[in-house]
Amino acid sequence: MQMNPNKDTQLCMSLSGRPGNFGLRFHNHLYEQLGLNFYYKAFSSQDLPGAVGGIRALGIRGCGVSMPFKEACIALVDELDASAAAIQSINTIVNTKGHLKAYNTDYIAIAQLLGTHAVPKDTTFALRGSGGMAKAVASALRDGGYRNGLIVARNEQAGRALAESLDYPWQAELGSRRPQMLINVTPVGMTGGPEADQLAFDADAIVAADIVFDVVAIPSETPLIVRGRAEGKQVITGLEVIAIQALEQFVLYTGVRPTPEQFQKAVEFARG
Amino acid sequence: MQMNPNKDTQLCMSLSGRPGNFGLRFHNHLYEQLGLNFYYKAFSSQDLPGAVGGIRALGIRGCGVSMPFKEACIALVDELDASAAAIQSINTIVNTKGHLKAYNTDYIAIAQLLGTHAVPKDTTFALRGSGGMAKAVASALRDGGYRNGLIVARNEQAGRALAESLDYPWQAELGSRRPQMLINVTPVGMTGGPEADQLAFDADAIVAADIVFDVVAIPSETPLIVRGRAEGKQVITGLEVIAIQALEQFVLYTGVRPTPEQFQKAVEFARG
Repeated sequence: MQMNPNKDTQLCMSLSGRPGNFGLRFHNHLYEQLGLNFYYKAFSSQDLPGAVGGIRALGIRGCGVSMPFKEACIALVDELDASAAAIQSINTIVNTKGHLKAYNTDYIAIAQLLGTHAVPKDTTFALRGSGGMAKAVASALRDGGYRNGLIVARNEQAGRALAESLDYPWQAELGSRRPQMLINVTPVGMTGGPEADQLAFDADAIVAADIVFDVVAIPSETPLIVRGRAEGKQVITGLEVIAIQALEQFVLYTGVRPTPEQFQKAVEFARG
Repeated sequence: MQMNPNKDTQLCMSLSGRPGNFGLRFHNHLYEQLGLNFYYKAFSSQDLPGAVGGIRALGIRGCGVSMPFKEACIALVDELDASAAAIQSINTIVNTKGHLKAYNTDYIAIAQLLGTHAVPKDTTFALRGSGGMAKAVASALRDGGYRNGLIVARNEQAGRALAESLDYPWQAELGSRRPQMLINVTPVGMTGGPEADQLAFDADAIVAADIVFDVVAIPSETPLIVRGRAEGKQVITGLEVIAIQALEQFVLYTGVRPTPEQFQKAVEFARG
């Protein structure tokens, strides 16, 4: 954070059901490194309209929005950026003099990662999941021209709805399919969850794949990523996703883009 | 401020039409000195109900309330402490799990100062002013047993109402009266105001008095205080008032009372 707060210090914040430390450490570290007069605070709330009303009334500059508020927030903002409109799910609010514009930097981060990891457009993939983040990932794939996909979701209603909205097929389980890229967008492998020690895809499918992509960030070394590394696969981790989405939030809030070195140091600091 | 903010950091804030630096410097300095995981942020707002709704929804621990919100805030809180109920004016909100209790630490500070400066109960005094702060000061005098007072206010309606509510006489001007204590609770002498360079009481009255008390804090060396010191009078300054009222807010928010040395250092830092 900025070391000498004063009356002109701007506040940014996060709003989530269960606040973590990554975002606030990432943002405050960069404010300090770049000498920006900002402070970042993590909040939880039981009252989303009251919280968003507070953002407006207090002139809070930006807000990261996490589960379970990503969709309910839409009705409370004034404008949706294309990144949020495409998937009707937001993770970022930017407040410019009381006008709230919402973005989805998860979508932006996924699109960037497919490029920086040079994933070929004709890669066959299976994406497991059907929630808000699955929608962001699948939409980024679809909009990026990745047509050879399959949505895998045990929740048939949500899975079919997601798949049909993007013109992908749906299956409840992967079965005998062996796609080139496996993407986990479920809580399987997440610390504290009921399936923390489980693989999001069968070992056979991992062995047959080229790329293993897990959006779970706590830990970013999920059983799926650990197994993928052990099998010599290209991996894309949830840490990359949360770091890039946080970076894009930082740029939206402050108007300043850190250097790649500053960004990497902030990620290392934020992981603590 | 606390040097390593994390997800458990608690926010306190101020809400005023024109934020200053004193409160946020005072509170953040003490958080750092005492190792408390708090951060203090100054806000202004055009939307008081939205701001107070935000305090509730975001679980903001405490809020200092300044002009022009001290009376309008009453309808938005859940409970008034005796210090606020007596004068129907608040300057402090404490949020305990969504229950908002309001206090008036200006009233508390005035009562303390009359004691620490050993002002005799039978002192004759003239209090100039008729606004919210005048109500706090006059009520603290009245409740402290100071009966020999006079309210001086050019605004007849507000002056009479204040005087009658506390059973003091009212006069538009001091005239030939020569009370032992002169108390200024108007903006006369305040930086940036139209009467910044003026004395709140005539020189004759200052010469005749024993004690000169000015609640103006910016600067705390007002023309009245400067003249009082030059005449060898006992002085009580606005700096003492804002420092003690801030200290009492700090105790209400954190449950921790700094030592006198810590308090004095925080005041010096906050003036910085």
